[in-house]
Amino acid sequence: MGWLADESGLERNAANHVPLTPLSHLRRAADVHADRLAIVWRDHRVTYAEYAARVTRLASGLARRGVRPGDVVATLLPNIPAQAEAHFAVPACGAVLNTINTRLDADTVGYIFGHAGARVVLVDTALLPLAEAAIRKMEGPAPQIIEVCDHAAGHVPSGHYLGYDDLLAEGDPGFDWVLPQDEWESIAINYTSGTTGRPKGVVYHHRGAYLGTMASVIGWRMQLFPKVLTIVPMFHCNGWLQPWMAPMMGGTLICCRDVTAKAIYDAIADEGVTHFGGAPIVLNTIINAPESDRRPFNHVVEVFTAGAPPPAATLAAIEPLGFNVTQVYGLTETYGPATECLWQPEWDSTTGEDRATLKARTGVAMAQMDAVTVLDSHDTPVKRDSAHLGEIVMRGNLVMKGYYKNPQATAEAFKGGWFRSGDIAVQHPDGYIKITDRAKDIIISGGENVSSVEVEGALMHHPAVSLCAVVAKPDDKWGEVPCAFVELKPGMTATEDDLIRFARSRLAGFATPKAVVFCDLPKTSTGKIQKFELRAVARLMAQQG
Amino acid sequence: MGWLADESGLERNAANHVPLTPLSHLRRAADVHADRLAIVWRDHRVTYAEYAARVTRLASGLARRGVRPGDVVATLLPNIPAQAEAHFAVPACGAVLNTINTRLDADTVGYIFGHAGARVVLVDTALLPLAEAAIRKMEGPAPQIIEVCDHAAGHVPSGHYLGYDDLLAEGDPGFDWVLPQDEWESIAINYTSGTTGRPKGVVYHHRGAYLGTMASVIGWRMQLFPKVLTIVPMFHCNGWLQPWMAPMMGGTLICCRDVTAKAIYDAIADEGVTHFGGAPIVLNTIINAPESDRRPFNHVVEVFTAGAPPPAATLAAIEPLGFNVTQVYGLTETYGPATECLWQPEWDSTTGEDRATLKARTGVAMAQMDAVTVLDSHDTPVKRDSAHLGEIVMRGNLVMKGYYKNPQATAEAFKGGWFRSGDIAVQHPDGYIKITDRAKDIIISGGENVSSVEVEGALMHHPAVSLCAVVAKPDDKWGEVPCAFVELKPGMTATEDDLIRFARSRLAGFATPKAVVFCDLPKTSTGKIQKFELRAVARLMAQQG
Repeated sequence: MGWLADESGLERNAANHVPLTPLSHLRRAADVHADRLAIVWRDHRVTYAEYAARVTRLASGLARRGVRPGDVVATLLPNIPAQAEAHFAVPACGAVLNTINTRLDADTVGYIFGHAGARVVLVDTALLPLAEAAIRKMEGPAPQIIEVCDHAAGHVPSGHYLGYDDLLAEGDPGFDWVLPQDEWESIAINYTSGTTGRPKGVVYHHRGAYLGTMASVIGWRMQLFPKVLTIVPMFHCNGWLQPWMAPMMGGTLICCRDVTAKAIYDAIADEGVTHFGGAPIVLNTIINAPESDRRPFNHVVEVFTAGAPPPAATLAAIEPLGFNVTQVYGLTETYGPATECLWQPEWDSTTGEDRATLKARTGVAMAQMDAVTVLDSHDTPVKRDSAHLGEIVMRGNLVMKGYYKNPQATAEAFKGGWFRSGDIAVQHPDGYIKITDRAKDIIISGGENVSSVEVEGALMHHPAVSLCAVVAKPDDKWGEVPCAFVELKPGMTATEDDLIRFARSRLAGFATPKAVVFCDLPKTSTGKIQKFELRAVARLMAQQG
Repeated sequence: MGWLADESGLERNAANHVPLTPLSHLRRAADVHADRLAIVWRDHRVTYAEYAARVTRLASGLARRGVRPGDVVATLLPNIPAQAEAHFAVPACGAVLNTINTRLDADTVGYIFGHAGARVVLVDTALLPLAEAAIRKMEGPAPQIIEVCDHAAGHVPSGHYLGYDDLLAEGDPGFDWVLPQDEWESIAINYTSGTTGRPKGVVYHHRGAYLGTMASVIGWRMQLFPKVLTIVPMFHCNGWLQPWMAPMMGGTLICCRDVTAKAIYDAIADEGVTHFGGAPIVLNTIINAPESDRRPFNHVVEVFTAGAPPPAATLAAIEPLGFNVTQVYGLTETYGPATECLWQPEWDSTTGEDRATLKARTGVAMAQMDAVTVLDSHDTPVKRDSAHLGEIVMRGNLVMKGYYKNPQATAEAFKGGWFRSGDIAVQHPDGYIKITDRAKDIIISGGENVSSVEVEGALMHHPAVSLCAVVAKPDDKWGEVPCAFVELKPGMTATEDDLIRFARSRLAGFATPKAVVFCDLPKTSTGKIQKFELRAVARLMAQQG
């Protein structure tokens, strides 16, 4: 331990120790980048000086309406400026931000209101019915609704609630931000969109939110003044911390209320978007955009994608359009991305399948994550042989504080001094991890482990396949067999038999799907395919023979 | 304060809290960037896997030779690989690194040995006489000398001491690094090259060293895999933290034992150097390089310069050569650069004097420094009017722990909850600070404050002037008058009268030098002009009438 023989006078003091908090990024930007565009949503174009002033008024307004340090302030908002402002204003009055997934059902939203104990909730006009239904179903005291009317999107206020603009107007422009005295103080709760059971509230601290802003800057090759398109919803791991990161870089957040090919192309062409994150489905949206929605641009847009590895066909189609795709992987519990498929310049000359194989790897720990490794059932790191399977575990300052009011689940998640992801991976000789399956997605067929990701990758090569998901179907003989659910490209056709034969040409017999269902795939708000629904369908299919 | 109503189970644990330390950067790089070049010095070319292995052996070797956690290990080394390795190996055995300025006299080095209580010192073969003389003069137990023989530079070991290579050879390759349990633990002591009195030992902690690695990445527009030329000596604020930062970025440190135009151009052309820091004198070395030392290259090299604003003439000459110069400002007490003249893209079209005026500003707080401001004598921020003078003060996690064994000087430096720089500045309306003078460099002539920097800037425009320094000369009538010391360019001539008339055309009468002395300017090892010597000369001149 590095304590000198004499440490007298070397203690912390006001000059040499400041608790880490992303609030400091906005405070600095309000000064250093005062006149630079902070946030853009159609005709709402606000500089950093104005942005910080609005945050101050909002923080003051919330405090005047009874929000006290440690209270929870919830939001039910799409990716509009008020959502970004809440990321600063809520902690700036000492409170904890709870951005709620707007695609949840009223029952679940009500549960979250009650569990987090939200005192106030900021609600988009279009989401008032959801908030009202949730409040009717919830237990405990209801949060006060503040209505955020998205004028830029042409909305008209309901008139039933205190308006966001009025709250800002009554706020004191001289309000002193409440800064954390301890960087371990809570800054946000994010409820996991768990597919079974009640969602758990993942608690973040100021320290992690600050350090996390640095992580993606490095991996994302981000330089000063990025233009970041908010495709990842800010209610999803706080938009991978983008609202907190942007002011550190003097960057501009371009809001995207509805994710369409037109909105993406327009933002790139008109606002010069340099970076965005999104699920692979967003990549498909871009690739399959109708000609009339496309816009020319001259730079390369850096895209972080997560949720599933980008298939070779997707990469081959999107890279010539001017997008460089990097896969990242993480969980709500890790403030978003914890690994990145860090691209080594030596690989620049690879093409086609080789390139896709490299890009499909889950990658390595991001610069601010202490350790990401793969442990076998004895908690020993697996051999780096691309073959032995283990669970991905993580340790570092970008791991959550724990689950709110759930010490038991927290203790389980942290068993053995690691955060347990539940995801299964191999590790390659060069240290890069590759997820073979989310723990619950492995198919065991005739005693063989089948990676649903691998089967999906094979099917995606078929020219008619737009999107697919593979799950286990119970089977009397094999235990389980792979069952594929497929969306075809518009105007294209393929039969079940076509796809099974196609898959068989690329996969072992036991890994080849035994059934193919053509349908629209059910997706979460973040574009993640809801395999639990497909599994239910597959179980039904099995019962019906 | 952001403590939730129920924080049970949300405490720190092994999975979610890791003390910040730059050691983590090397540990990650040894894995993620294993085969990438970490450090280059002529034929010594070492990958990150090899670098980390050498660090492990060195840490083990030091521990075997009796170095215990909390002990001090000193170095007397130029910018060679062993100096970078010590930056990791010394903390990796729990000890505190004390890199000593190799241009100091034996008496001062001996004082530092004794004051820091160094147990071991790593000494370059060429510096053994200095180390031996210092030990003869010191009080207290002498450090054990380990001889670092720079084979790449053609040196031959003296044979009198344990060799660095032998120490590595006896080290255990399986040695477990001692990681800090508290990020406030000390990692380094840097003695300020104070121009009067005994130097003070500035103590750094692991937290600051870690956070500081991020600061220059942002300001320096640094992307993955930079090639950093070590011109700033690593004994100067730990080379602006470059040895600790490089592995985070998968970067390569290119060592530079002797700073010559040829060494710089060769490193750029042969190794693809992308970044370096250095005093303005280094810029002049590049500009004035003989044709035979120049090498062509196709990229822009990013240069951070500190110590004095780059004069317009220097900028005009160096930018077309392929160098982009950014001024930074800081002190040993702030881990090196604390402000940067952050370049706004709106200024890209400026040229000549306008551009130089912008680039000559001291700038704004770097992204990881909490606050840099200018306070008047009542500790009130000065008006941002480019006119009112005040002292630059700073606060943040990149401020030292304090001075070693000197609680009184520490308390004084931190008076009022700010670190007091002693430097005088104005603040412009856009928040950019501009140093008018280091506190002791102000000349008060006839009651008017004269900025020596301004006078120097005027003289640098003269085509024959290569370098100059202006100090106060005592004067019976005016109190003080400006006195200039000038180096002319090779083959150029100018008289005292020429320069005084030239200066007068650009300056107020009271600011125009009343005397000009042509001489070689005395410089510190970091290229900073030693004005205290010039002041002594000026005082003598005044006495002699």
